[in-house]
Amino acid sequence: MALENDLILRAARGEQVERTPVWLMRQAGRILKEYREVRGSLSGFKELVETPELAAEVTIQPVDILGVDAAIIFSDILVIPEAMGLPYQMVEKKGPWFENTIKSQADVDKLRDASVDDLGYVFEAIKITKRELNGRVPLIGFAGAPWTIFCYMVEGEGSKTFSKARRLLYTHPELSHQLLDKITNLTIDYLKGQIKAGADMVQVFDSWAGILDYKQYREFGTKYVSKICKAIKEVPITVFAKGAYQARKEIASMECNTIGLDWNMSIQQSKSIIGPNKTLQGNLDPCVLYADFKRIELETHKMLNSFGSQRHIANLGHGVYPDTNPDNVRCFIEAVKSYQHK
Amino acid sequence: MALENDLILRAARGEQVERTPVWLMRQAGRILKEYREVRGSLSGFKELVETPELAAEVTIQPVDILGVDAAIIFSDILVIPEAMGLPYQMVEKKGPWFENTIKSQADVDKLRDASVDDLGYVFEAIKITKRELNGRVPLIGFAGAPWTIFCYMVEGEGSKTFSKARRLLYTHPELSHQLLDKITNLTIDYLKGQIKAGADMVQVFDSWAGILDYKQYREFGTKYVSKICKAIKEVPITVFAKGAYQARKEIASMECNTIGLDWNMSIQQSKSIIGPNKTLQGNLDPCVLYADFKRIELETHKMLNSFGSQRHIANLGHGVYPDTNPDNVRCFIEAVKSYQHK
Repeated sequence: MALENDLILRAARGEQVERTPVWLMRQAGRILKEYREVRGSLSGFKELVETPELAAEVTIQPVDILGVDAAIIFSDILVIPEAMGLPYQMVEKKGPWFENTIKSQADVDKLRDASVDDLGYVFEAIKITKRELNGRVPLIGFAGAPWTIFCYMVEGEGSKTFSKARRLLYTHPELSHQLLDKITNLTIDYLKGQIKAGADMVQVFDSWAGILDYKQYREFGTKYVSKICKAIKEVPITVFAKGAYQARKEIASMECNTIGLDWNMSIQQSKSIIGPNKTLQGNLDPCVLYADFKRIELETHKMLNSFGSQRHIANLGHGVYPDTNPDNVRCFIEAVKSYQHK
Repeated sequence: MALENDLILRAARGEQVERTPVWLMRQAGRILKEYREVRGSLSGFKELVETPELAAEVTIQPVDILGVDAAIIFSDILVIPEAMGLPYQMVEKKGPWFENTIKSQADVDKLRDASVDDLGYVFEAIKITKRELNGRVPLIGFAGAPWTIFCYMVEGEGSKTFSKARRLLYTHPELSHQLLDKITNLTIDYLKGQIKAGADMVQVFDSWAGILDYKQYREFGTKYVSKICKAIKEVPITVFAKGAYQARKEIASMECNTIGLDWNMSIQQSKSIIGPNKTLQGNLDPCVLYADFKRIELETHKMLNSFGSQRHIANLGHGVYPDTNPDNVRCFIEAVKSYQHK
C-alpha cells in the first residue's frame, strides 16, 4: 500500500523533502495517559510486548494523539536474549533483571539455538499495526545493537559501569566475540522478519556504546553493527549509538542511511565528522520539553536551523522522559512541522 | 615537614620528574580487605566518613599495602549538601538517598547558611592522616564540582538521566545559578579548609559533567569549576570532569594544574586539545585490572608511552571497581614504577 506520508523514508534516503519529518524515541509509552490505561489493565510491561493487538494499539496512539510522522513498533530490545534462552523480568522502577547470565563458555554453550520463529508475536504486532495504520505514516522496526544486548546478557541488569560485561571483553575476548556473533546473526534475521512483516525502516539502538573506549568499541561494537547494516538492504536503516562521540567517523563509514545523534553531540561537529552522505537524526535535549512553549519553539528552531532543511529527521537526543507533558511534546512536533527554513 | 616523595606535586606543577607518579581513584575502599574490616565494624559508610581516626586509617592503607605515590583523604562529596541542610543516607548497594531535595525557591531559601565549621571532622581526619603519613607521600583533598553536587541536591539520589536536575536548568535557570553559587562558595571554603589542615593538592570531581550538552555545561558547569580553580592558589588543583569530551578545551583554559581524563578519552586527541601547559591524569580502563598480569603490564606501558614521561600522573580513568583483585592493582602500580621511557 502506498504511504500518504513518506517524509521520513525520503529523508532517510537523501531524497528531497518539503519539510523535516519528526518522531520521538519512546513516543509510545508512559507520557500518554492512553498508554497508561492500556498498560494498567495488564500484569506488566512484558504482557503488553507479547500481546500483538495491544502492542499495535499503543504503537498507533502517538500517531493519532501527537501527530508524529512515523510510528515505531512497541517492543523491547531484550526479546533477543530471551529468545536465546535467557528469560528476564521487567521490575517496576528498577528495569530488566535476568535470573541467568553469561559468565563462561558453558553458559554460551547452553544458549538455545534460537530462531526468529520464537519472535512471531513481534511480527504479528507489526502486521496488525500496518493494517491499522492503513498507510498514514511509515512504521519503524528496531533491535538493540549486539554490544548493548551483550551488556544485559552478561550483567543481568542495568548498571552505571557495566563492569561485568566489560570485564569479559578483557578476560574472555574469544568467548565475547562468539556471543556477539550469535546475537548479530539472530538480530539480522529478526530485523529481516520485521521488514517482511511490514516495517518500512529499522533502527539499531546501541544504548551502551559510550562506555567503551574507541578501540574496544571498534573491536566489540561497530564491527557487529556494521555487519547488520551490510545485511539489511530492503529498507533504510538508522544507527543510534548513544555516547559514541569518538566513533562517529567509523559509523559514518557503515552502510546505514541515518545516524542518530544524542543531545550532547554538537550538530556542527557531527556534520563535519560524518559528512554529507548520511541523514542525521535528533537531537533536542529531552529536558527542553520541560520548559515553556516559547522556549521549546526557540530551541527546536535553533536545532532545525543547525541541521538544515534536508537529510534531517527531527527527534530528541534520547527517549522522551516519562514525566513529560504531552502538550509540550505536541508543541515540539508543531514547531518542527511549521518551521520555514530560510 | 618535607615530603620524602613529592613526585605527584612536581608532575602537577610541570616540574621534571624521574618517573611517572601513580595513584588510583577509590584506592581507599572496598578493594582492600583491610578496609572492609574497618568498615564492617561500623554501622555504615557515613560513620567511617565522620570518624577522623578511622577515616585516616583507611586513607593510609593503600600507601602501606599498594605502594601508591599519594594518599587521598577518605570522605564523600555529599558532605557539602549535608552541611547546607540536606542530610542523606548511604543505602547499601543503592547509593545516596536524600529525604529532602531542592524543588523550588522556598527549598533554596530554607538551606542553612552553611559554614565549613560543620565539616571539622574532615579537617581533623586530614590532620591525623598528615601526622601518620609522616611525610611519606602527599595527601590529596577533594570536593565534588558544583554541577555534580547540584545533581544530587535536586534529584535526591543517583539517576541514569538526572532529568529532574536538568529540568531545573530549563524551568528555573536563575534559581539554578543561585544554588550553584551557594555550593561554589562553600566548596571554595571547604577546599581551603582542607589545605589549611594539610592537604598537599586538591581534586574537583565532576562526575556528571557528561550529561549536559556543551553549551549547558559551559553555563552551569565549567563556570563554577573555573571559579573554584581561580580561588585555589595554595596548592595544585586537578579537575576531573567525567564524560566532558566537548569541554576539554574549556577546561584547559582554567587555572588548574592537572586535568583528569576518563578511560574513554583518547590520549592523543586530549593532548592536542589541551596543549602542553597542563598535566594530564589517567586514564587506564579500570576493567584492564580484571585481565592477567601480562595484559595489565602491556596496557599500562602502552598508556605511559602515549602520555610521555613528563606532565603525567598515572591513574585509572574511573574509580577502581570494588571487585578488583589487589594483586592486579599492585601489578598496575609496579608496571608504572618500573617503566623506562624510551
